[in-house]
Parts: sequence; structure tokens; C-alpha cells
Amino acid sequence: MKSVVVRNIERADPNAIGTLAGVGVSTAHEALGRSGLMKPYMRPIWAGASIGGPAVTVLAQPGDNWMIHVAVEQCQKGDVLVVGCTADNTDGMFGDLLATSLMARGVTGLVIDAGCRDVKSLKEMGFPVWSKAISAKGTVKATLGAVNVPVVCAGINVHPGDAVIGDDDGVVVVGRKHAAEVAIKGEKRQADEDGKRRQLASGVLGLDMYNMREPLAKAGLVYIDEPEGD
Amino acid sequence: MKSVVVRNIERADPNAIGTLAGVGVSTAHEALGRSGLMKPYMRPIWAGASIGGPAVTVLAQPGDNWMIHVAVEQCQKGDVLVVGCTADNTDGMFGDLLATSLMARGVTGLVIDAGCRDVKSLKEMGFPVWSKAISAKGTVKATLGAVNVPVVCAGINVHPGDAVIGDDDGVVVVGRKHAAEVAIKGEKRQADEDGKRRQLASGVLGLDMYNMREPLAKAGLVYIDEPEGD
Amino acid sequence: MKSVVVRNIERADPNAIGTLAGVGVSTAHEALGRSGLMKPYMRPIWAGASIGGPAVTVLAQPGDNWMIHVAVEQCQKGDVLVVGCTADNTDGMFGDLLATSLMARGVTGLVIDAGCRDVKSLKEMGFPVWSKAISAKGTVKATLGAVNVPVVCAGINVHPGDAVIGDDDGVVVVGRKHAAEVAIKGEKRQADEDGKRRQLASGVLGLDMYNMREPLAKAGLVYIDEPEGD
Amino acid sequence: MKSVVVRNIERADPNAIGTLAGVGVSTAHEALGRSGLMKPYMRPIWAGASIGGPAVTVLAQPGDNWMIHVAVEQCQKGDVLVVGCTADNTDGMFGDLLATSLMARGVTGLVIDAGCRDVKSLKEMGFPVWSKAISAKGTVKATLGAVNVPVVCAGINVHPGDAVIGDDDGVVVVGRKHAAEVAIKGEKRQADEDGKRRQLASGVLGLDMYNMREPLAKAGLVYIDEPEGD
Amino acid sequence: MKSVVVRNIERADPNAIGTLAGVGVSTAHEALGRSGLMKPYMRPIWAGASIGGPAVTVLAQPGDNWMIHVAVEQCQKGDVLVVGCTADNTDGMFGDLLATSLMARGVTGLVIDAGCRDVKSLKEMGFPVWSKAISAKGTVKATLGAVNVPVVCAGINVHPGDAVIGDDDGVVVVGRKHAAEVAIKGEKRQADEDGKRRQLASGVLGLDMYNMREPLAKAGLVYIDEPEGD
Amino acid sequence: MKSVVVRNIERADPNAIGTLAGVGVSTAHEALGRSGLMKPYMRPIWAGASIGGPAVTVLAQPGDNWMIHVAVEQCQKGDVLVVGCTADNTDGMFGDLLATSLMARGVTGLVIDAGCRDVKSLKEMGFPVWSKAISAKGTVKATLGAVNVPVVCAGINVHPGDAVIGDDDGVVVVGRKHAAEVAIKGEKRQADEDGKRRQLASGVLGLDMYNMREPLAKAGLVYIDEPEGD
Repeated sequence: MKSVVVRNIERADPNAIGTLAGVGVSTAHEALGRSGLMKPYMRPIWAGASIGGPAVTVLAQPGDNWMIHVAVEQCQKGDVLVVGCTADNTDGMFGDLLATSLMARGVTGLVIDAGCRDVKSLKEMGFPVWSKAISAKGTVKATLGAVNVPVVCAGINVHPGDAVIGDDDGVVVVGRKHAAEVAIKGEKRQADEDGKRRQLASGVLGLDMYNMREPLAKAGLVYIDEPEGD
Repeated sequence: MKSVVVRNIERADPNAIGTLAGVGVSTAHEALGRSGLMKPYMRPIWAGASIGGPAVTVLAQPGDNWMIHVAVEQCQKGDVLVVGCTADNTDGMFGDLLATSLMARGVTGLVIDAGCRDVKSLKEMGFPVWSKAISAKGTVKATLGAVNVPVVCAGINVHPGDAVIGDDDGVVVVGRKHAAEVAIKGEKRQADEDGKRRQLASGVLGLDMYNMREPLAKAGLVYIDEPEGD
Repeated sequence: MKSVVVRNIERADPNAIGTLAGVGVSTAHEALGRSGLMKPYMRPIWAGASIGGPAVTVLAQPGDNWMIHVAVEQCQKGDVLVVGCTADNTDGMFGDLLATSLMARGVTGLVIDAGCRDVKSLKEMGFPVWSKAISAKGTVKATLGAVNVPVVCAGINVHPGDAVIGDDDGVVVVGRKHAAEVAIKGEKRQADEDGKRRQLASGVLGLDMYNMREPLAKAGLVYIDEPEGD
Repeated sequence: MKSVVVRNIERADPNAIGTLAGVGVSTAHEALGRSGLMKPYMRPIWAGASIGGPAVTVLAQPGDNWMIHVAVEQCQKGDVLVVGCTADNTDGMFGDLLATSLMARGVTGLVIDAGCRDVKSLKEMGFPVWSKAISAKGTVKATLGAVNVPVVCAGINVHPGDAVIGDDDGVVVVGRKHAAEVAIKGEKRQADEDGKRRQLASGVLGLDMYNMREPLAKAGLVYIDEPEGD
Repeated sequence: MKSVVVRNIERADPNAIGTLAGVGVSTAHEALGRSGLMKPYMRPIWAGASIGGPAVTVLAQPGDNWMIHVAVEQCQKGDVLVVGCTADNTDGMFGDLLATSLMARGVTGLVIDAGCRDVKSLKEMGFPVWSKAISAKGTVKATLGAVNVPVVCAGINVHPGDAVIGDDDGVVVVGRKHAAEVAIKGEKRQADEDGKRRQLASGVLGLDMYNMREPLAKAGLVYIDEPEGD
Repeated sequence: MKSVVVRNIERADPNAIGTLAGVGVSTAHEALGRSGLMKPYMRPIWAGASIGGPAVTVLAQPGDNWMIHVAVEQCQKGDVLVVGCTADNTDGMFGDLLATSLMARGVTGLVIDAGCRDVKSLKEMGFPVWSKAISAKGTVKATLGAVNVPVVCAGINVHPGDAVIGDDDGVVVVGRKHAAEVAIKGEKRQADEDGKRRQLASGVLGLDMYNMREPLAKAGLVYIDEPEGD
């Protein structure tokens, strides 16, 4: 690991990010071929937020938030800060002071593979965070990490500038260059789902709407009227 | 495992289920002799829902929700869908489209030993889910399981038609044939608790109300005024 | 383990506790030199509560809440009940009846290294609980433990009378004799943070406000404009 | 839950059990249609044991091993004791004294969804145990459970007399009535695997041996010689 | 937390420790009234070691082993080093170099509520370690902790000089002043168990040897010959 | 995710890999600047193996090992197969048949972020595996993944051809282009440690050998002879 801060990163297309945020995490993840999704332990600290933005990435050491302070300066309006950690850690690396600083720069949210604190204030401030844990554990500022290098965060490799989308379903990451293409697929998928939703609401069965009966029978599914004796 | 769908199941008595839902999960579990409770990792995706209904059961494969689609057709008004999985899995097997379809059939809720997604929409739709995880991870429709066979869900063996009760305390399952008897016990217990609640609120100690002082002394409990030197 | 109930305990200074509750868990934990914090699995069963009080401690056996009933009698107005367990356990040792009894005595909250149930009622009653799990699992009253002995609760050794502070960030314990001194430090820290918050909100960078640039450079941090070839 | 001991249970056919133990857990599980496998947290306390026998089942309370003492009397030569628990628990419910007693009755092993202790002695005695944890935590004998009722153990519903097979891969349960039929399938599968093993050892690819190339191509798999630009 | 090193600690009686190590962790834990046992996640990195010694305690920061280096100087022949951590951590804080240093001082083992590395070498050196994890993750030497202050390690509060016993069943801690008394109880218990073992091996049932039949009947246990219809 | 198999990958320098395997995981990880280490849940299924080789990577679906079969063909003598999974999964994706096939091609080991089975046979065959779990759970061959694309495995992003080193301490990954440079650093570090080991064995304290006394004092460490009153 080199202790570097990369200053000028390329960011995913803002229109594509906007579209992806609009369709939401589950649809964006599907549009990406069912990939890019962070592990489900990444949960929002308060419900209802829905964001998208290009990633500014941080590689932090366990129990040490020095690099988050460094990263603030690299953030622009609309960015999402994404923090990976060199080892499993749940310490409260992030709180309302750092959030104040990020909000002053226009950052729209934080995704952190570690802990977060001051959650009541963060909710009042309207600053959304997806984290592995809520913990008041204080951290030091003693060991270098890196900013804007690729980091693994909750099982996903995130490059600086990638599109990061977060909502109540979790967090998905779309590669910077693929954001536009995936956004189009996401919109199509959403429109398609709207049609299906209407059919299902009217009582049409998915078995019929998706034409599943034949493949099910071919795979060997059998319908019986009485359970077999145990 | 046989890949079957059992079509005609017997369902627990609706009146008994109504009573059990009314007394809630904790009281129903006590009335059942402190059994039938799913593991505490089964949590509601939104707070405040309280349901009860006979189980339509699904045995699904990890990462595969094909059998849930099959199960919808077997559901009737008032049913609760209960999904077990052949291996530990947190993928988002269930979302708002399936919920739309279930609601069209009058199903009152879902209990799934795996993941769930579209949680914001599900809350807006008022469709309650108890799940092991929230995850946007998409699933395939490739491998058969079974519908309306006994399944282990979160540590409890659920038979089709069993009474399933869910609220903020978790999920409890009462065997189909025992529902009426347990419902009566649950009502008695609830009435009994109301009386105790009034006494405790007035300042009577549980030690006295439950006559614990003598058995405590007999078991060897000693009261002292000063802690012993460490 | 001796099965004792210690009747007369000394309690931390109420003014100090009030101050500590006012600054909150994260600040109190920092003021204590980044110690005293319970493990982050201790979560409030409903958000927004913020309490402080001297600890009445309970050592309970797994699946057995007998000692909690014993402890109620030892509680005074303003106390917080803290329950440790001799082995990992998530059973629902505490519910609305015990809460009714504690509220009748003026107890302000519960911290339990096990499970809790009747969470909807507890929220309606306004009784705050921090627990390891929510579980309806019923418990027995069969084996002795102890009351007002030192107990380890979620990784922290708690002595009777220690100051216990709980909010949405978790639970912190401040030793009885140190409460006043830590409260003063906490207030100073909070005032200091208010000033920092204003600066950061105005756009001043933490890098500058905390004078981090020199130590970062000294530690070897390098700024580059282009990422190195992978 | 009724506190009963069922005295006369029917046991799975010993020849079938012997065959299933011979083919091992993984093969028996496959022969059963990929079901019946306990969760992977069930691990042997020492490596190398391989057993099979009809289940004598125990439903125990957390932290209480009274029912195991009761169950010993119900065991016959060749049986396997299977212990489920009414709540998650890791206490050391079983040790060398109980093992001595079980060995005196000819029991061949223990499967326990809780903790086990005296593991060094148990290894020296040659008594195999599959457990959720190793823990010296002592237990009480205070609350009833049941013997020879169906119990869920590590995610599997076990009926008294079912065939239980354990080896280094884990534990699988085959329903009493299906044991003979599954044993035959297991033997066929094993013979079939021996032939495949020889082919693979000689360098034949599974892709060819299993005729996978065509379905892979049909599913859309593409071979390329250069990775796409990231 | 004060950053202190306490130089002159009192140590538990070596004869008592020797006796406790001889009876082993499970028996010592029982003799202590079923207390003092560390959580079962503390496992030996290699099987078969059995040690006892007075504790030299370390409070370390996550990802930082500086204080372990400080603690070595405070160790005497026969001591056991016990390391607690201010936050959950699995980093490899300890390896063969530190073990070499501890062995040069006659330390008999390590108990660490974090990670350990160089496990193959440690086994070859015959240096026993009980840890929460095996991890090669390197640590820094940047932040102070303390030596020979009370620390919570795996759920147990350990004071400097307490008797620490470790074997394949886990780790138990006996208070310094109680070691002699507990050792005597442990020896009695062991002798008593030897007698029981002989009886059980001869086929006497625990039900009879422990006179359980009457209390079981009184508690309501019923024997039946046929299972009730499900 | 594209369903591709990349056929011609560049592999890290074999001499460098040999050196890295020789110094072992912990030293290689340190030489890499304390990075590249997989999460500590990746454990060898049998102790004592020590391997190194260039990665052939697989991205598999949960409960589906189809892509492992595809990957075999892409392996060369000396390779290590590295399997990541699109979602958390512990199913037994790998067993002795696949191991037979890999050994026929000269593959030296497997690293899999999922389950493994046939562990007794694998040990007898001398085929080393690092996995997240041991599980007999059978898998299907139904959904495509990819071969020789970058995969996240146990928290580390692995590119095809990267140097993968595994031993009893875990698994570390060194980027293909950096292997030679890291190998040199690893050798130096190892030589350096040999010298330190001799000093420490002779009784020199690390405090002195590493010149820690001054920085410790500067950081504020205080030595006292009597503990402060609690």
C-alpha cells in the first residue's frame, strides 16, 4: 500500500448517476447483471435516504480516521465518500463534525466499512450514512492510509469516480465507464417492472406472466393434492 | 427432497389465529409452553405490523426464488407465506413485485429465512415482512424446491397450515391442530397479565406478588449491606 | 460467584450524571479517555432515548430472569438497571411487566446483555432499553445469580453505582468516583466541538483547523495527480 | 412443548445406516436430493471420526442438561444422541462423565446444537461429538425438556429413529423410512464417482466428461483472449 | 483510561495455580461456582496445551501491539500474559518474535482477545496461545494503552496477578485471593468425579446415581410408550 | 458482470512467488506494506500446508459451482485457483473430484470464499484448501459467472495472475507486477527478523532493541509501583 492522495480523479457521468439513483439500488444492481452490490451488513443509519454520486475513496487503518480528514479536501459537490478499512473494524470513525465538513463541500453521503457515531445528530442534519456498525468508539489519527486509490468496501472493489448509489436496500457500485450504459438498462427495467406491477395487481399470476409453467414441468415439478405420508 | 407442490392443505382455525395474533408473539409463545419461536435474527423490515395467518410453506434453494413464484398460486386470502432455504442465504429473494402479487391474493405477510428487498416500497404498500436480512441481491429461477411441505424456517419446523403469528417481538408458529387450545391459554394469560400489570404499576413488588421470597431464601440467596472485599 | 444481594450501594453524583447524559455517549466516552464503551451490539430498542443514572447491577443465568425480579427492590428513583449474563444468551429476559414495576420505582432505563421483548409496548410506555437482541423467548426463574456485584456487560466491567449513559450511539459506563471529573471534561469537550463545528460549517478544512498537514507530510503522505498504473 | 419421554421408538434399518455411514456425509446428502444437512457450524471436536446410527433425540433448555441425563436410559447400542435446544446456547452441556455413561450403553456419538467440554478426554476416549461450540460453561438441572420428540437441530428437523451420519464434512439426517432407499442411491453415486475420479485423474476435463460445453455456450458463456479494458 | 504500567503486582499462590491447572478449566470453573470462564470464541491455536499462571495484563488499542512490547519487561517466570483490547479487533498483534521474548523470560502462555500470527512457528516452539482469531494482519506501535490494570478479556474482568488456567476447553480466571480456596474445591470435585466415572462406566445410570427420578417426576416429566399424533 | 472466460493471462514471476511462499504469509503481508491479506475467516482445512502460485480466478454464483468446472481448463502447473462469490455463501462448492482434476493439471491449491467438502479425502490427497466454511451442501450447475476476471475474495481484490500465498496464518495476495519487488523486501525482512530473534532469545528486551523507551515516555506512559485506588 502506497500512502498517496490522488488529487484529480475522473468522475462518472452525473446524468447517469442521477438516473441510477432514481431507479434505486435493487434495479441498478439488476441492470448491472446482478453485481456490484455491497454486502448486506451495510445498512443506512436512518431510513428513507436515497443518494447517488461519484466515489471519493479512502483506505483507512482500523481505529484510525486520519485519512478521512485528508479526504475531505478532495471532495466536490455531489460526491459520495467511500471508506474501506485494512482490517475488520467497527470503531466510530465518523461523526457529526466530519459530516459538517463534508456538507460544507456538498458531499451527499458516506459509505463506510466500519462504525459511525453521533447518529441522532446525523439524522437531524439530514446527512445519510451507510455503515457496518454504530459505535461511539473514538479513533486516533496516527497511521497513514490512502485517498482515491481502489478500495474494497463491504466486498466490492470501488475505484475513485465510480457511481455509488445508496438507499434502504443497501449500496451498489457501478464502474465509472459503465454508468451511462447501466443507467439506460435500469430505466428500461423500471419501465418494464411498472407494467408487470399492474398485471400482478390485477391478479395475473407470475407463473403465467413469466411463462414459467412449462419450464417448471420440464424441470420435474409435480403437483399433488395430498401430502405423502411422512 | 421431492420437488412437489401440495395443492390442498388444511389450515388452522381462523378464529384461533385471530386470537393468537391479538395476544401477540410473546404471549402466544408462552401459551405454547415456551416453544415455537423463530430465532431472534428474524426481524420485521418495518416496525408496528402485527399479523397472523395459516402458513403456505416454500422450500427454496440459495439464491433462487423460483418456488416463491410457484407458491403464490397456492395462497388464499389471509395466508402467510413462510420461506425456508436449503442453505444459509441472505439474497433478496422477495421484493415489491411479488408483494403486489401476494396482496392481490389477500396474503397478509411474509416470513423468509433469507433476504428481502424493495423495503421502502414494501413499507409504503403496508406489506409486512420478517426476514433474516435486507439485501438487493438478485436471484435466479433455475432450481426446483417445494411448496407446502414441512420446512425449517429460522430454527422452527413449520407445517403447511400451521398458525404463524408475527409482530415486533418476532415470529411464533403454533401447530395447526393446537391453535385453538393455545389461543384459549393465550387469552387467559393476557387477562392474568393485565391484573399483574395493575398491581406492579401501583408499586407492589414482583417478589411479593409472585411469592418469590421463600424460594429465593431456600435456594440460598443472601442479602448483605456491604460488598465483600474484592 | 456468591449468590448475594448487596443492599446499600453508593451511587455516582447525580449532577455529574446529568451532565454526562447531556453531552451524550460519544462525548462522555472521549472524555473518559476513549474507554468505558460497551460493545456496539448493544442497541436501543427504539431510537431517540437519552438517559443517565447510577447502575444497579444484576448477574443473571442464561434463560433465567429470577435475579431481575430480585433487583427491582434494590432500585431507587433515577437508577439504571444493568444486567450481565454468565453465558451468551439472547432470551427475552425482560418485558413490559418488569418495565411497569421499574417505572413504578422511578428507574429510567435498562441495559441488558441478553434479549428483550414486548418492544412495542415498551416504546409506547416510553421505557428505554439497550439490549443485545429482541426475542420473545420466555425464561425460567430457577437459578440464583447476584445483585449489585460487579458484572461484565457487553465487554465493560460495571460496578454498582457507576454512572451509566445511554443514547442512540450506545452505552458508556463511567466509574462512580470519576463521574464528576469526567463530566467536567465532557462539558469542555462539547464546548470545544461547538466552536469547531462552526468553523467546519463555514468551509474551513479539518486539515487546517487541526494542523494536520505537517504531521501528514512527515509521516510520508504524498499527493499525486495521476494514479499509478495498476 | 410437552415434557415427555417417549420410550419405544422405531429405529432406521441398521444395514442402511451402515451403508450411509460408509459412503459418508457428502454422498448421503446428495443421495437424499441435496437435503438433510445440518448447518455448517456443526463441527467435529476431533477430526477423523465417521459414525452412523439411529437418533435418540433430546430437547434441552438453554444452560440446562437435565434432559440429556434422562435420555441416556433410552439409548441402545449403536444409537446416536441428538440434542436440540429451545434457544441459541453454547454452554458446555456435555462432558466426559456423560460420554462414559453413553459409551457404557454402546452409543456411538453425540450431535449437539450447543456446547461441549472435556474435549481432550473425549478424544482420548474415542467418543466423537459434533457441536456448535466448545465451552467449559457449566449447566444446571432445573427445567424439563423432552426426549424422543421431533427436534430441530442445526436447521434440520430430526425425528427419533432417523438415520444420523457424521464425519469431517458435518452431519446429515435421513428420515427413518427413507434410509434404505437413500442408502442404495448413495452406493450407486459412490460407484459412479469412483469411475469419474479415475477419468479426471487421467486428465480428462470435467467440461468434457459432464458434456458441459454445449449448455455453457447456450447459456451465453464467451471465451476471450484479452481482458476488456477495465 | 490512564496510560500506566504497574510494576509490582501481587501474584496468586503458585501451588494453588498448579493445582488448578492440574484439574483443568472445566473443573476449575465449576469449583468457582460456574463463573470466571472466558467466552468460547477463545480457542487454543494448537491442541493439547494445558497451562496456569498469574496474569500480567495488557490493555491494547485495536491494530496496535505497542503495549505488549511494554508488558514483556513486567513478566516473570511462570506468568501468563493476558491481552484485552479497547475495541473488537482480530489483527495479528502477536507472533513468534514476541513469543521468543516471552519464553526467554519464562512466560508460559498468552491469552489475547484479538488475533495471533506465526501459528506454525508458535506450535513448533511449544508456546501456547488462546486467541479470538488467527490473522497475519500487521499492527502499528502508535497509541498507548496500559499494563497491569484490570482488563476485560473475552467477557471476564481480569486483575493483575489473578490465576489464569487454559486448556482445550478454553480459559478460566480465578481471583488472586480465592485461588487457594478454589483449588481445594477443584481437587475435591475431581476426586468425586473419578468415583462417578467408575460407576457410570459400569453401567449405573446417572438418573439413579444422582437420584434424579423423584425430582423429575415432581417437575412433571411423563414417560409414554407411543408418541402422540403430531 | 460479463460471463466471460479469459484464456491467456499473464502470471506473476515464478521465482518471486517461490520467494514469497518461502517467507510465508505474515512476512509477505508486511513486505507489501501491511496490505493484501484476506479476512481471517479464510482458514486452511488442514494445518501445515504452505503454497504459492499465480491466481486463476473464478466468480461463482451462490450455491453454484459451474464456473469452477470451467476454470479447470484454464489452469496450468503451479497455479492456485481463487474463487470469489457474488453473494455470501457457505455451500460445499468444491470436493475431491474437482481436486483430482486440478491435481492432474498441477494446480497447487484452492482459495475459496465459500464452502468446501470431502475434507478428509482432500487431506489424504495432500491438496490444500483455504475456505470460509466446511460444508457438504451440494451445489447446482445452472448460472454463469466468469473466469479470469478480477474478483473480490475474502475482502481482497484479486486479478488473474496475481501471486497468491497461503499458509497456516491465512492467505495474502501480491499484485502480479509487484511480486518481484515485494519478494526482495520479504527476504530482507526475514533476514532482519532472524537477527532480532536471536537477540530476544538471549534476553534482550524489545523495548531496548527497538528503542521504544523514549517514544513511550514522550507519548506519556507512566510507570507506577502501586495501582491507584479503584
